[in-house]
Formats: sequence, structure tokens, C-alpha cells
Amino acid sequence: MQVIAPGIWQWTIGQPEEHTPTRHRAFEPCLKTMAQLPKIEQCPFDPANFKTKPTKRGLQIEIPLAESDELYGLGLQLKSHRQTGKMKKLAVNSDPVADTGDSHAPVPVIMSTNGWGIFVNSLRYVTFQCASNQKVSANAKAASAENDIAINTEDLYAQKQLSEKLLVIEVPHVEGVEVMFIGGPDMVNAVKRYNLYSGGGCLPSLWGLGVWYRAFGRFNQDQVMDMAKHLRDRNIPCDVLGLEPGWQTKAYSCSYVWADERFPQPQKLIDDTKAMGYKLNLWEHAFTHPTSPIYDELKDVSGEYEVWKGLVPDFTIQKAFDTFANYHDEQLVSKGITGFKLDECDSSDFVYSDWSFPLLSEFPSGMDGEQYHSLFGNKYMQCIDSTFRKHNLRTCSAVRNAHALASPFAFVLYSDLYDHKDFVRGVVNMGFTGLLWTPEVRHATSPEDLVRRIQAAMLSPQALINAWYISNPPWKQIDRTLNNDGQMMDNWEELEAHCRVAFELRMQLIPYLYAAFAEYQQTGKPPFRALVMDWPNDSETYNLDSQYMCGDDILVAPMFAGEAHREVYLPEGRWHDYYSGKVYDGKQTITVTATLDQIPMFVKDGTLLPLAKPVQHIETDTVFELTPRCFGENCRDAKLYEDDGVTFDHQLGKFNTVTLTANGKLTREGDFDQVRYVLAD
Amino acid sequence: MQVIAPGIWQWTIGQPEEHTPTRHRAFEPCLKTMAQLPKIEQCPFDPANFKTKPTKRGLQIEIPLAESDELYGLGLQLKSHRQTGKMKKLAVNSDPVADTGDSHAPVPVIMSTNGWGIFVNSLRYVTFQCASNQKVSANAKAASAENDIAINTEDLYAQKQLSEKLLVIEVPHVEGVEVMFIGGPDMVNAVKRYNLYSGGGCLPSLWGLGVWYRAFGRFNQDQVMDMAKHLRDRNIPCDVLGLEPGWQTKAYSCSYVWADERFPQPQKLIDDTKAMGYKLNLWEHAFTHPTSPIYDELKDVSGEYEVWKGLVPDFTIQKAFDTFANYHDEQLVSKGITGFKLDECDSSDFVYSDWSFPLLSEFPSGMDGEQYHSLFGNKYMQCIDSTFRKHNLRTCSAVRNAHALASPFAFVLYSDLYDHKDFVRGVVNMGFTGLLWTPEVRHATSPEDLVRRIQAAMLSPQALINAWYISNPPWKQIDRTLNNDGQMMDNWEELEAHCRVAFELRMQLIPYLYAAFAEYQQTGKPPFRALVMDWPNDSETYNLDSQYMCGDDILVAPMFAGEAHREVYLPEGRWHDYYSGKVYDGKQTITVTATLDQIPMFVKDGTLLPLAKPVQHIETDTVFELTPRCFGENCRDAKLYEDDGVTFDHQLGKFNTVTLTANGKLTREGDFDQVRYVLAD
Repeated sequence: MQVIAPGIWQWTIGQPEEHTPTRHRAFEPCLKTMAQLPKIEQCPFDPANFKTKPTKRGLQIEIPLAESDELYGLGLQLKSHRQTGKMKKLAVNSDPVADTGDSHAPVPVIMSTNGWGIFVNSLRYVTFQCASNQKVSANAKAASAENDIAINTEDLYAQKQLSEKLLVIEVPHVEGVEVMFIGGPDMVNAVKRYNLYSGGGCLPSLWGLGVWYRAFGRFNQDQVMDMAKHLRDRNIPCDVLGLEPGWQTKAYSCSYVWADERFPQPQKLIDDTKAMGYKLNLWEHAFTHPTSPIYDELKDVSGEYEVWKGLVPDFTIQKAFDTFANYHDEQLVSKGITGFKLDECDSSDFVYSDWSFPLLSEFPSGMDGEQYHSLFGNKYMQCIDSTFRKHNLRTCSAVRNAHALASPFAFVLYSDLYDHKDFVRGVVNMGFTGLLWTPEVRHATSPEDLVRRIQAAMLSPQALINAWYISNPPWKQIDRTLNNDGQMMDNWEELEAHCRVAFELRMQLIPYLYAAFAEYQQTGKPPFRALVMDWPNDSETYNLDSQYMCGDDILVAPMFAGEAHREVYLPEGRWHDYYSGKVYDGKQTITVTATLDQIPMFVKDGTLLPLAKPVQHIETDTVFELTPRCFGENCRDAKLYEDDGVTFDHQLGKFNTVTLTANGKLTREGDFDQVRYVLAD
Repeated sequence: MQVIAPGIWQWTIGQPEEHTPTRHRAFEPCLKTMAQLPKIEQCPFDPANFKTKPTKRGLQIEIPLAESDELYGLGLQLKSHRQTGKMKKLAVNSDPVADTGDSHAPVPVIMSTNGWGIFVNSLRYVTFQCASNQKVSANAKAASAENDIAINTEDLYAQKQLSEKLLVIEVPHVEGVEVMFIGGPDMVNAVKRYNLYSGGGCLPSLWGLGVWYRAFGRFNQDQVMDMAKHLRDRNIPCDVLGLEPGWQTKAYSCSYVWADERFPQPQKLIDDTKAMGYKLNLWEHAFTHPTSPIYDELKDVSGEYEVWKGLVPDFTIQKAFDTFANYHDEQLVSKGITGFKLDECDSSDFVYSDWSFPLLSEFPSGMDGEQYHSLFGNKYMQCIDSTFRKHNLRTCSAVRNAHALASPFAFVLYSDLYDHKDFVRGVVNMGFTGLLWTPEVRHATSPEDLVRRIQAAMLSPQALINAWYISNPPWKQIDRTLNNDGQMMDNWEELEAHCRVAFELRMQLIPYLYAAFAEYQQTGKPPFRALVMDWPNDSETYNLDSQYMCGDDILVAPMFAGEAHREVYLPEGRWHDYYSGKVYDGKQTITVTATLDQIPMFVKDGTLLPLAKPVQHIETDTVFELTPRCFGENCRDAKLYEDDGVTFDHQLGKFNTVTLTANGKLTREGDFDQVRYVLAD
């Protein structure tokens, strides 16, 4: 057992594999910040109590749990929240059809309510049996309770009872592995420690917190410009415009070359949209088409299998990394592209067999497909991220795969799935293991569904309208087919108005959200969190998979279409309804409803919320006019964060900590010499 | 390369594992019969052309295919038929949610239209890439066809083209494996050869071909008797009555002890139902409850993990096998039970993590959970089957898992899934690799749905009404909830009449079906077959996953609820509509419709179909009154099979081959001295 960072111990079993998450990490641990966390004197585990067993399948590790351990994490689990009692195989897969562990972003990190975490430093598809399966026990006979005949699943599970709590981890195909034990002492500190060990939370470009709109995949340059104008004409706040496959000459796979016939003047498009306050984001994946200018150079540093006739670059080989990065820098980033949407870097096991490279592929680095699937998103992000860092620019981008140690990447996960509850569950779960996720909005089954989806997206890391398959904004026509047929709804302006309320709520919260992200960057504390992370000793929080904390002070409980009301659990303390101001005592479950313009939010007593006058888009010189709103008496000061919003100069100290007091004073501390926040008249 | 049976070559790579399908085979190969198949001079493959690669994941084998190879098989694949272009991981799983290879009964055997088969002799979850993934080729650049921008899956796949046809097999966790190459020379002979190598096709008890009705799981003895009487009163043919969990004191897991309070006089129940012509089949699974009389004896010969608090006996250990078999024999089979429904011996990965034992379990034999999952169904069948063989009795039973070499077991696979097209696809696919399957009927979404489902079930290996979760026959109320509420449909007698037509069709076809099963037993030719098996050179048959051959002469094309008509492909030759007698030339696709009483069937020109007068149930002394029906002119003789229907005496030559001629003559050859078939007046 070796201390590898403050409060983190490494236990090495046998001979670990050559390729691991830590070996391929993009960022160094934030050791200094970790040293400021509560000191952990002793490792939360003593491996003398564990069993390890090498088998033909791999390596098995048995860890006895305390009766009170409740487990969370394992990456972007869309199908369940509390992992206790479940078995998860962490396979990279964009179509999690069931609660099996398949995920866009499986992460072999698990967190306990008892304030510890375990990180299995492996790129394998690790299985976690979280007290899910019981071993035959000596006293089974005595313990066999009376049971009735079960004829359905509910009957069956009513009869189940755990007699022994064991975490069993199986790392396939290996003879050894490193396991990291992460101390807390409490759950949120264990999470912070893991994120700091990863390199700290990301700080996205400030504009990345604005509203995103991805345009129809078949649009040409003029049509994109028309949409850009339309959003401004209609006063729909929007910062980022996304282009889908059609910008390229080839897709699928990708050429990374502008398609003349659709986009004859790409520089003009970049400049014109920039002049309107937009930042341009380009869709792509890494599978490189034979006609791409970088194909030849990538050929000997790519995997043995094609995907979509394209190469799969091995980004762990410097030549592949540099070829890909340099081309993107020179052709796109240097010309004003501000971010990318890195698609298809997860697998898609349940759609078509050959959607991605097979697990058995071999890569030039010596990794196989299983290992590279786990690592692919992280290395792809690192490659693209490096092109911005070269220009001292932050991005806010999108990606469809991530793994361990990903928290420093300002890339937000997304999905082609679309169940609204799964999407909200993603926001609840992402924070345990250093991920960001957007419950993006596309079409809708009803106007209510559209508004409810947009509201939840606005209170998430990325406020994304992903209209890639519809040619008009969804609020003009919610139905995909009619939308593309040009048949707008009669009352679309009314629906647009409801959506605008949600967009403007987002823009009001930008200073608050940016402060939450700054804290993420500085301390590793996730900006969006499951309630159990803040109240790990309150068992009422253990199954809350549709409400979450946004920053430290706002509890969000999205509504879902077709549900006239919902239950909200309020933990210890006093809570203020954001809209009515009604005060509730904590430690109770209340039933709430909300008008179509409201997403239920509850604000902690004593919170001073700095609400901004909504802007249409965020520039480097944007100044936010704040109206402080006090929830309760004796409000605490509000802390805000001020920097240029786009560079890494903050790492050199160029940022301010801004304090807003209840009596309406703004003061700032720090070396950033530009004012971003003023009080409204 | 070693010849291990006529036309089968074994190739051994490295050091194979200790536990394999052949080591645990229940039956010896039928070498004498195999010698009568067309002689294969040369192995269909030369391993000199293969690549094998040991990796950390296991063993990889690359086999170049011919351009014309089209691949089928891999066990009970419910989600697809033609495997070319697909990747399948053969995992034992009762909930195949997608076309991934997950299956109740995955079998590592693949068959080609070019008349060969490959059997991977492993209990591992083998992956087959059936020309699904393309390697990076030298000429990719030149070959990159023009493509348009794809924005949906259909676009994408329209652009795909295979440039190289490779079968890549990955056997995980092993350092060696045996691969068997099976010669044809044509597809049906390769299938026959595999089945004969497995020990030949099964010959179920004759009554097993009758209609099955499984009674409501909460019924007590009186209620079962009431149902038995009801079916007879209503003239619903029925041979087998199934009891569900409620017969036992404990379920889940199982005690194998009659529950006094519900079944106070089990022997009376057995005797009374037998007197009415029923055979009694009992539900169970192998997970043994602590209160079971055999628990203590099984404890040290079971897996390390509990399932449902019960033991998982390791049937490869003689003590476990004998304990389980002897108890079943003494307590149940000797007392008149004629068969079992072996439930839950597949896994259930997508429902709950602990539905079955984990893959990483260890068993006393040294197998792990992955290996034992593959073998579990086969060994469980062997154990139960042995109890009947001891009494020189055949069974016809039900099971939810099987693997390689299972064709001699008269156990029919079933599922909790319920998509009607998937169910019919199962009938199409089961025959490639020695399996039987029933598209069982439970509830229905409409009266039409009920009738269409029953029709397809009647033209399958097991004519099963599985009313385990409804207290009344589904034709009295199709809706599950209303059925259990006792609210019968107003017009149920009308619907019952439609169903009775289907039941009686089944009973008319018993002699024909029994002859097809006798051929299965004698030659390995499956009684139900995909069209491609009989017409492997006709590419129009390659994607036919909803029509199949029943015996040699009847082509079945089930109707599905909500579809007013359907397409049917008729291969080479002339075909007669079973109902109208209308004649069609082959090599064409026709569109047909069918009244609610008809399931489309097309009979080969020149077929003499021996239709029986329907009986209500089949006894050892049942004599079938035949009415021959001639389809076309110059009809071929019909061959029938005659034996006692219940013992293995046929293996001693006690059977007759009965010939029916177009001019109405019945002649018989053989040593069985009882007459089963007479001509109707």
C-alpha cells in the first residue's frame, strides 16, 4: 500500500497491465489542493481483509462492505442511481438498453455514503458486484424465511434479503491491477479528492454556459445563416451554433474538409456568425475517410479494423495525436472554430455489429479494442483540447465517451437515447465520477414535453437544443416529420414564448453557474450533484434519481410531461420555493406542481441569489447586470467568479473572487482587471 | 487435423480447456449413420489458410470465407436469421433485447450455404464476427466510393460494402481450443451431420406432439381438475397439463415437495388426470431451497453463490447428478409425472443482477460461471432425462437453456419474451444447430393476435398454451388482468371455435409430424427448417425469417395480427395452397391473405398428405384414422412411422415404416406389432 496523493492509497495486485488510465492521463493530479482537503490519517481499507483470486477469466477481488455502505458512481449510469444490490459490467456502449453497466462513459470508480471511493485503474470492462449476489452461507437453512409462491418479479423480490454485503470486482483478462482507495472523510470530499486526483474539475469557456443550438444536418451555408438570424430575430438567447455532418465532404467516415457545394465560404460563415455573437462548433468523429488529407499519415498509426471505411487513429501514438491535432488546429481552430462535437467514440453494440471497431481489434500501441474503447474518448478529447490550449483558449465541447480521470475536460457527454427520466438521472449521476452530461432536447411528443425537456436542459451543464434532424426549431413544430415538411404549428409563437422563459432562466443563472464551475475547477466539487452526495447520512436521499443540487444552493426537481405533480424530498434545513417564496421545513417529502413556465426549484434558506439580466449571448466584454434575490433573512454573501471567460490566464492568477452582500455591495479580490458584474439599477 | 467422425475434422489449437461440450456430452455420436451420409473426401477447410492469435483476451481465429458463403445458426437467435455481416457474442441470456448474440440457447456452431459447418468446442462466450467488420485494406483509398452525407442509419448502411469476407472467432480466456469442421456436401447434410455427431435428433414421446396447456400458477388441486374437465368439456384437444410453481412448498427457490395445502393428494391428481388422458408436467428450476430434502446432500457439490437463496447443483459432479436424479425419480417420475419444465437455467442479465449465478462463480468441478451457464441446461436435461430412461420411457419436456450437442434431448426451448415475429423467427432458426423451440401462447392484444399466435404454435415443435399467469383459457379472455378478474369476453365461444380449428389442424398433422421427428431421430434432418437449408443456392431464401418448412412437404407462412396480407416466397417447383388448392409456380414471391381460420400453408406438388381424424389426446393404443389428401397428380407415397410412442424400444428395432400410396393402400415394414394408422372409411 502506497500513498500516491493526499488521502489516496494505491494497492498493487500482481503484475498490472501496461496500459492503464493513469498511464494515459492527460493531466497531473492537483496535489497541492488535495493537501488542503481534510487530512485522512488512515486508508479506509485494509487489504488484509480482502480476497483476491486469479482465475482464467481474470482477477477477482472481494471487499467486505459495512452494513451501512450505499454505493454510487460507475460513470454515466442512465438506468439506475443507487448501485447497492446491482451488478454492473462497465462496457462502453451508446445504447444502454438495460441496467447492466453499459454506458457512453463507464468509469471504474465507486463512491460510498461512508465517505470513501475505490478506483480500479484498468481499461478493461470491469465488473462490479455491489452486494448483488450472495454466497452460499453456512446458516442458509436456518435463515430460510417463510416465503409464499412467487409468480411474478415483484413477488420474487419481496422475498429477497441480503445476508452478507460484499463488493466483488472482476477485472477480466489481467494478471494484476492497481486499485486506488480514496478517502473522504465524507462522500463529497471523496468525490472532490477523486476529481482533484484527475487534475481538477474543468472550467468551460464562459460562453459554453450559454444556450446551444445545433442546426439541421442537411443545411447549407445560407440556411445556417438564416437560422442564426432567425434566433436573433426571435430573441432566443444562443451562444453556440453547431454544424452537423453536412459541413464535410465526407461523412461517415470523416474527411475534416469543408464541402464546397454546401459551404462555399467557410471563413465567411465563421466570421459572420462570430459578428452576430455566435461561436461555431463542428460535428465530427475520429474515423478518418480515405479522402481525408490526413489519411495517409494516419494509416500506420491506426487500428487494424476500419470503421465506416475510415481509419481509427491510435491517439496514444504521438504521430497520430500530432497529425490529428495539427490538422485540426491549422484548418479549423486557427480559423475560428471554437469547439467540436466528438461523436461515435463510444461503441454501439446493440445497433449494428460494425458500428465501431471490435473488442478484439489490435492497435499499434499494443492495446486491444476493449482497452481502446475505454480510452478512446479521453484521448480524443485530449487531442482536440490541445489545439485550443495551444492558442491559450478554453473550449466547451461535446463528446460521447469518457472514462476515468476525465474531470478536467470541458467536454459534455450526450446521447442518442431520449427517455426524459433517464436523461435527468444522468444529471444526478454524472457528478460521482468526474463527468458532465447534457439532457439535450430534440423533438417532443407534446408541447408540454418540449418545455419540460428544455427546462431540465437549461438546468444542466450544457443547455443544448440539438436540432440536427429537424430543419426548424422544435418549438415551431415538435413533430420531426412535420417539422421537416415545413408544417409549423399554428400556435408556435405561444410555445416559443414558454421556451424563451426557460432560456432566460438559464441566462439569469449564468453568474451563479459560472461560480459553481469555478469551484469545480478549484476544489473538485461537482457543480451538479445527487442529493446523497451532500446528505450521505440521510437515507431518504438514497433513491432520489430525479432531483439534484445545482450549485450549493438550488435544489432542482424537473417536471415530466404528463405528470401533473411530483414528489420532492427536501433534506435538512429550510427551503424556499423559487417562484412563490413559500418556505418549507426540510426532512420531508412534499408534493409540488408547477405551471408550464416553471421548473420546481427550492433555494436554501439564507441564500443570496445573484440573478443576471438575461443577455442574448456572452462575449469577452459582456457585463452582467445583477439583481440579488434574498431567500430568507440574514442572507449569506454570494461568491462569484470573474475572469476573461476564454483563456487559461486564470491559472496565472488572473481572476477575481467577487463578493455580493445582502445589503447590495459588490466587492472583488484578485488580479483580473475587467469588471463582469455590476448591480442593476 | 484429425477425422473424428465421418465428414468431421477436428483441429486443435494450443492447449484446450478441461471442460468442453464434447467432454460433457450426454450421447455418443451416431457414427454408423454418419457413414451413410454422402462421403466427404476432404476437409472443407485447410487451417494453413487461417490465422490464429493468442491475445490477453483469449484466442482469435481468422477464417477466410468465400464470397458466396452465407452464414446461419449460432443457436436460438431470435433477433436475426442471416448472420452474414453480423457480430454475435454467444452469451446465455434469457432477455435478448438486441441482435447481439444473447440467447436462451447460444450454440457455437455456424452453418454455411456452401455446405459446411464450424463447431467451436468451447463453453466460453465465444464471439463470431461473421464478415461483420472490415480490416484496413491496402486499397481503401482507391475503393472509397462516392458517398453522400448520411444523417440517419438507413443512409449510413446504404453506403456500406464489404471488401473482404472473413469469419473471425474469439474464444475468451483460453489458450487453446478445438474447432470441428463439418462437411456437407450441402447445407442440410452439414446440419444432419452435426446432429448425428450430437447423438441424433430426439424422438419425443408421441403424446408430446399433442396440445399442451399450462395451468395458472396459483391453482390448487381442485382448480387444476376443474381446468382438466373444462378442456375436455369444450372439446379442446389437450395431451399435457402443466403445473407451475404452486405445486411446491417453496418457489423460488425450489423444494421439489408437493405443497399439502394446495395439493393434498398428488397421487390422486396424477391418477385422475391420467384417467382423463392427460400427462402431467411439473415446473421447476434447479436452484434448491434450504428446506428441500436434497439440500444437505447437494451442499458440497454446488456453486459458491446462491440463487434465490438456493443451491446451484454442479450436475457434472456425479453426486449432484445422482442426488437430483434419484430424488426426482423416486418422488415424481416413478409416481407418474411424465415431464418437467426446467425453468431459469438460462441467465437473465438484463432483468436483475442476481437472477442467476454470476459469471465469476466457481463450481466444484472447477468450471466458472461462464462455462457452467453454457452447460447448465444440457446437464440439467441429461439429469432429468435419465430418470425417464431408467424406466424405458421417453419424455417430451421443456427447458430454457441448451448448448451444443443438444439435439438428442426431447426438450423444447421457450421464453418469457413475447414478440410474435421473434417467436416465429425462432422456429426458422432453431434447426441449424440441433434445437427445438416453441412460440408459445399466453395472453393476446386482440382476438386476431390470439388466433394467429395459436396457429403458429400449432405448426411448431410444441403446441403450447402457456396460461401460467391467467386463470382462464386465453380464448375466454385475451386480456391478462380481465382474465384473472374473471371477466370473460361476451363472444368467447366464437373465439374458442377459431382456436379449436387450429388445435384440430395440429391433431390432423400428428402422423405427418411424427414421421418428421422420426426422420430427425434417424437421420438428423430437422423437422422444421429455414428455407435456405433446403434451397441454399437460391439467394431469395437468404432473408426469409418468417416462413419455414414443416417436414419435407409443407411450407408454413404464419400471419401476424394487424397484417391483412403477407408475402410468401415459393422456391423452385410447384406449390399448392393448402386450403384453396390453387397452384403456384415456384421461384416467385406471392402476396397472400388468409381468413382467421387459416394459417397460410403451401404443399409441394406431388405430396400425399396423410391427415388424421383429430383425437382429443394420444394414448399408447390410439389408432389414427387417416384421410390421404393428394396435392397434384402422380403423388409420391407418404412415409409414416409407427411405434409405441413412449419407450426406447424403437432403438431395438420395434418400429414400423408405414407406406401410404396415392391409390389408398397402407403397407408396413418393421417389427412393431401394433397398428397405429388405418384408413378412414
